[in-house]
Amino acid sequence: MVSRKVDLRSDTVTKPTESMRAAMAMAEVDDDVLGYDPTALELEEEMAKIMGKEEGLFVPSGTMGNLISVLVHCETRGSEVIVGDNSHIHILENGGIATIGGVHPRTVKNKDDGTMDIDLIEAAIRNPKGQLFFPTTRLICLENTHANSGGKCLSVEYIDEVGELAKKYDLKLHIDGARIFNASIALGVPVDRLVQAADSILVCLSKGLGAPVGSIIVGSKDFIAKARRVRKTLGGGMRQIGILCAAGLVAIKENVQKLEADHKKAKQLASGLFQIKGLKIDPKSVETNIILFEIEDDYGISMETLCKSLEERGIFVMLQTQTRARIVFHHQISTSDVQYILSCFQQTLNGIKVVNGN
Amino acid sequence: MVSRKVDLRSDTVTKPTESMRAAMAMAEVDDDVLGYDPTALELEEEMAKIMGKEEGLFVPSGTMGNLISVLVHCETRGSEVIVGDNSHIHILENGGIATIGGVHPRTVKNKDDGTMDIDLIEAAIRNPKGQLFFPTTRLICLENTHANSGGKCLSVEYIDEVGELAKKYDLKLHIDGARIFNASIALGVPVDRLVQAADSILVCLSKGLGAPVGSIIVGSKDFIAKARRVRKTLGGGMRQIGILCAAGLVAIKENVQKLEADHKKAKQLASGLFQIKGLKIDPKSVETNIILFEIEDDYGISMETLCKSLEERGIFVMLQTQTRARIVFHHQISTSDVQYILSCFQQTLNGIKVVNGN
Amino acid sequence: MVSRKVDLRSDTVTKPTESMRAAMAMAEVDDDVLGYDPTALELEEEMAKIMGKEEGLFVPSGTMGNLISVLVHCETRGSEVIVGDNSHIHILENGGIATIGGVHPRTVKNKDDGTMDIDLIEAAIRNPKGQLFFPTTRLICLENTHANSGGKCLSVEYIDEVGELAKKYDLKLHIDGARIFNASIALGVPVDRLVQAADSILVCLSKGLGAPVGSIIVGSKDFIAKARRVRKTLGGGMRQIGILCAAGLVAIKENVQKLEADHKKAKQLASGLFQIKGLKIDPKSVETNIILFEIEDDYGISMETLCKSLEERGIFVMLQTQTRARIVFHHQISTSDVQYILSCFQQTLNGIKVVNGN
Amino acid sequence: MVSRKVDLRSDTVTKPTESMRAAMAMAEVDDDVLGYDPTALELEEEMAKIMGKEEGLFVPSGTMGNLISVLVHCETRGSEVIVGDNSHIHILENGGIATIGGVHPRTVKNKDDGTMDIDLIEAAIRNPKGQLFFPTTRLICLENTHANSGGKCLSVEYIDEVGELAKKYDLKLHIDGARIFNASIALGVPVDRLVQAADSILVCLSKGLGAPVGSIIVGSKDFIAKARRVRKTLGGGMRQIGILCAAGLVAIKENVQKLEADHKKAKQLASGLFQIKGLKIDPKSVETNIILFEIEDDYGISMETLCKSLEERGIFVMLQTQTRARIVFHHQISTSDVQYILSCFQQTLNGIKVVNGN
Repeated sequence: MVSRKVDLRSDTVTKPTESMRAAMAMAEVDDDVLGYDPTALELEEEMAKIMGKEEGLFVPSGTMGNLISVLVHCETRGSEVIVGDNSHIHILENGGIATIGGVHPRTVKNKDDGTMDIDLIEAAIRNPKGQLFFPTTRLICLENTHANSGGKCLSVEYIDEVGELAKKYDLKLHIDGARIFNASIALGVPVDRLVQAADSILVCLSKGLGAPVGSIIVGSKDFIAKARRVRKTLGGGMRQIGILCAAGLVAIKENVQKLEADHKKAKQLASGLFQIKGLKIDPKSVETNIILFEIEDDYGISMETLCKSLEERGIFVMLQTQTRARIVFHHQISTSDVQYILSCFQQTLNGIKVVNGN
Repeated sequence: MVSRKVDLRSDTVTKPTESMRAAMAMAEVDDDVLGYDPTALELEEEMAKIMGKEEGLFVPSGTMGNLISVLVHCETRGSEVIVGDNSHIHILENGGIATIGGVHPRTVKNKDDGTMDIDLIEAAIRNPKGQLFFPTTRLICLENTHANSGGKCLSVEYIDEVGELAKKYDLKLHIDGARIFNASIALGVPVDRLVQAADSILVCLSKGLGAPVGSIIVGSKDFIAKARRVRKTLGGGMRQIGILCAAGLVAIKENVQKLEADHKKAKQLASGLFQIKGLKIDPKSVETNIILFEIEDDYGISMETLCKSLEERGIFVMLQTQTRARIVFHHQISTSDVQYILSCFQQTLNGIKVVNGN
Repeated sequence: MVSRKVDLRSDTVTKPTESMRAAMAMAEVDDDVLGYDPTALELEEEMAKIMGKEEGLFVPSGTMGNLISVLVHCETRGSEVIVGDNSHIHILENGGIATIGGVHPRTVKNKDDGTMDIDLIEAAIRNPKGQLFFPTTRLICLENTHANSGGKCLSVEYIDEVGELAKKYDLKLHIDGARIFNASIALGVPVDRLVQAADSILVCLSKGLGAPVGSIIVGSKDFIAKARRVRKTLGGGMRQIGILCAAGLVAIKENVQKLEADHKKAKQLASGLFQIKGLKIDPKSVETNIILFEIEDDYGISMETLCKSLEERGIFVMLQTQTRARIVFHHQISTSDVQYILSCFQQTLNGIKVVNGN
Repeated sequence: MVSRKVDLRSDTVTKPTESMRAAMAMAEVDDDVLGYDPTALELEEEMAKIMGKEEGLFVPSGTMGNLISVLVHCETRGSEVIVGDNSHIHILENGGIATIGGVHPRTVKNKDDGTMDIDLIEAAIRNPKGQLFFPTTRLICLENTHANSGGKCLSVEYIDEVGELAKKYDLKLHIDGARIFNASIALGVPVDRLVQAADSILVCLSKGLGAPVGSIIVGSKDFIAKARRVRKTLGGGMRQIGILCAAGLVAIKENVQKLEADHKKAKQLASGLFQIKGLKIDPKSVETNIILFEIEDDYGISMETLCKSLEERGIFVMLQTQTRARIVFHHQISTSDVQYILSCFQQTLNGIKVVNGN
């Protein structure tokens, strides 16, 4: 059996820390559906303040936070939202905005850096005059950091420019900021400045921040009032959530500052993997806590085989396609883990190669 | 200021007990979206076993549990569900099954005991042959206990009969069993027997059972597999939910047995309130933990005034309509509270009467 | 074989008259999706004028006209519409407003005269203040004449009162006036006065008015602009519809005035049927062109048998339930047909009775 | 005033021919919602036979035909359809499949020839195993001829290949064949062979075929049975449609054979326009009846100005973007019109140039 397990599939796999467990055990709670949970109110206020927005709302997941945000901004039937063709909302959330909300997704190509060309966004905007054949564009969604491009950061200049465009056409701007703190830290830009142009932001507590459950959406008072009703409709209204929110408060207080180390370790590992024969990886592309890597075409083994062999050594990575896999760092991966991971990769690839070579 | 607070608005207002807090603090957890949280798996298996169904799924709320169940049973566009016209699903869940799911609700009158006439249900069933003008009935929903009728219990004979009807027309039967344990105990029927005829059941952990957050839906393996995807679509997939599920396991182990005392105290209070001049209440109608009461038409004060005056004494009840209010018992209301509540009612009604009498 | 066929199933079965055929053959047409069909524009303007509203829009069917109207008034997600529990929209249009539009139907009991109690409508209105658990009522729908109650007329006083209620709560009022001209004539009230309180009205050209295809919705300029987009979304935008609209113009000009005779003949037939042993029918309940009739419980034959026997004599009626059938008059049923129908009923019932008597 | 008007905006602008008018005036009709209209039945059977499918269904428009087809193939909630990013369904039908049907559109890039790379289609197919984050692909849509690429034809080999792919993954294949007869004639492939691989096809009668109103969808008996119910739900069930279907029968009989001449004239015009200084056009790209053209960047006038100037001379073309316009041929554009159009273009461009040159 494996003596050591290193789970790199996602930053969602973190276990609550001692201080979180203590906070949860002590949390003051009440019925949040009735609006009285004091810890929830504290967390929502705190996050709104950090993000520079009026109010916040705790939601069970990032998927629900994005779904609620799109549904609030697109509350009128016949709405269209512009999303990246490789964005989490479009690719990894069950198509919920269309399936559940009847919102029409209009995709614009995500470039390798997670951005969409401003010109292409503008060209995709439709129906200021109510043309008969078109849905009406009401929202642009950005994702920062951008998961499927390997955790790339959208710059504040880019976001501001998209914000200008949105204003010009009287559209709203939503940021899927599941990992917005990673972007803020990597860019060295305060998070409230980074999301200044946005009307709403989704922030996850249960990714790099390490809380067990939950996300928060922030926006204007009116946005949050509407979001609260949509949350109830979806079944996201919960009772004594102070338990979870207490962990969220600890996550903000203690774990945001750990993200920089995650990025550093990710880059160390990427540099190490770059040295290993058979792997295709660009260390410079690692901006935050995510590493995407491929296997050389002529190396003779599949990515699936590689992943399985790594698992036998206790290293869990996420197979994404037949040729690509993902590693995500979080605060429970240590510097010594980095060395261990590297050695496992080395042994695994050598081992497989030997076997295949026979 | 009020020295003593008694919150009777709902059984959702309970605070987690010491044993729940301890269990949460110690809970073994992992990423439940990836399917690995051991405490979640334990709770889901336990509840499925108790209910006599194949599998269970933890969901953030009763509303989501009902919504998912209806959406799974009515996965084909053009489905109709038969629901009580005074049921929680139809009246108190934002119309989510239509708004979010496009499922057409066909209502049948709820009688005072929470049942719907079997004949009327049968008459409402439509479209075994695919008639052109009608949606296709695919599901019947019952609610046990039935909240808006004051916590009345549906008998096992009644449920079995509806189950027979459902089978006859190849329909599914879902039970909104948010308070199914209350019904089981009040009726003296094992809960698995009580829901035997149902294809799916929603059970709340955060009502009388006193857990801070969560509900469980149970059903066949196939039902739960589909439910898991719908849960993800709605954003109800959460990460380290073992924290919440640990409390749920304590709730099942320790709090189901407290429900009988809740019922007893509710009946005591109802008998006491019956003696108070000005109140309209039928003590015999109290079958479980809910009391509905009205104020005599000619008593000269409104229910809203009464509720506010009670609040000043620390007694919180739920105003439902201009003339009706609701009291719900839970394990954190003690026998001594019952006496205190009665005296507050007495004082309040006398006080108001005196004021109004001047 | 049958030498004479009398089709009483619906007033939708009329064949276009010679003048309609001539008008269709000569109709000036153009592409209506592009907005240029002159005959469509003429018909829409004419109907708007007759109804006393700003604009009109030709739609393929009454069902689409009602669907578009509800979708325009309830364009915001989370809307609820108050409809009669025995209304055409709720019972006979596939639940489209929920299935297709995600609009939540809240039913109020239809009385025998097709009305809903004003008090019950008011009690069903929800969410002026945005309560968390409720959809928001945005629309009340009436139906005049009311088909499932046998073509009963809603009085102008009743409609005005519902209109007042709608205004009080800032709701819209839609009238399913598929047979609004029948109501106007039976009541002796000008049709524009009759629908004065309504924000939108659906009028069918292809029922008593005898046009081959089409309905019109009328309302404000803004309502029609939105309706035009919803019509396109549903696929109801058509090209050279001047062909159909030409028939519609003839229908208005020539056939409205024939409705009074339809009512008279319907009453004659009802009086005659009342004399026939075995039938249950209330001649006084026949206010317009629809007759509902039942068969005496102890008469020993089913309604289905009766209908089949009538068909063998060329008389086609609409079987509605196991015990009830419907007759609808239109301008292609003559006075001599009435006598023929009566004799067929007499012979049929006698014949069956004799057979069954053996 | 303009003495001569040539409407090139679309092939939907044709007026019914004398023979169509005669056929409509004589058409035998009945109530098609009740299923009895003999002319509708004849047309539906005829088209099904031509297309080599089991049954057909008349629908008010191409948009509704596509919408119904997608909704039938994707009747289960959580379905995804693969469509071209520049397809009519995705771009020009109000996003109805998502807005109305909750079907998630997954776009694949349309190449200049209207095809999508087979590899990209295959890569976009998702969820044979029910992955938790993804909708389930159930349908691929092709468009032949492909409107937004200028009426390009998809070859039978290409369609067959997509059909193989669909079968491999247990998906359905729908062809938006609004102009499928144009493709058949241009390719020299019998239309039933061309659509052999498809499960459903939408054919428009009111485009090049010149009928005033209507389209037909064809497919299996089961597909059409479901389509009939969806048509009713959308409000597309109409009454005496034999009037329209009579014109449709003439369209098939008389106008299919005129399409070849349309293509020839379109090519003649394209060659002529190619000679005119200032226009950008590729005559070889004109495969059927559609011409797309642009204006030279440095020519100094906008496409909007050009279109308006042409309109003053009676030539109506469709402005598509700021730099592009569209011409569509149909049987009511004569060979002499081609010369007239060319001379108008020449004069217009010269005239504007002169004016601008001053």
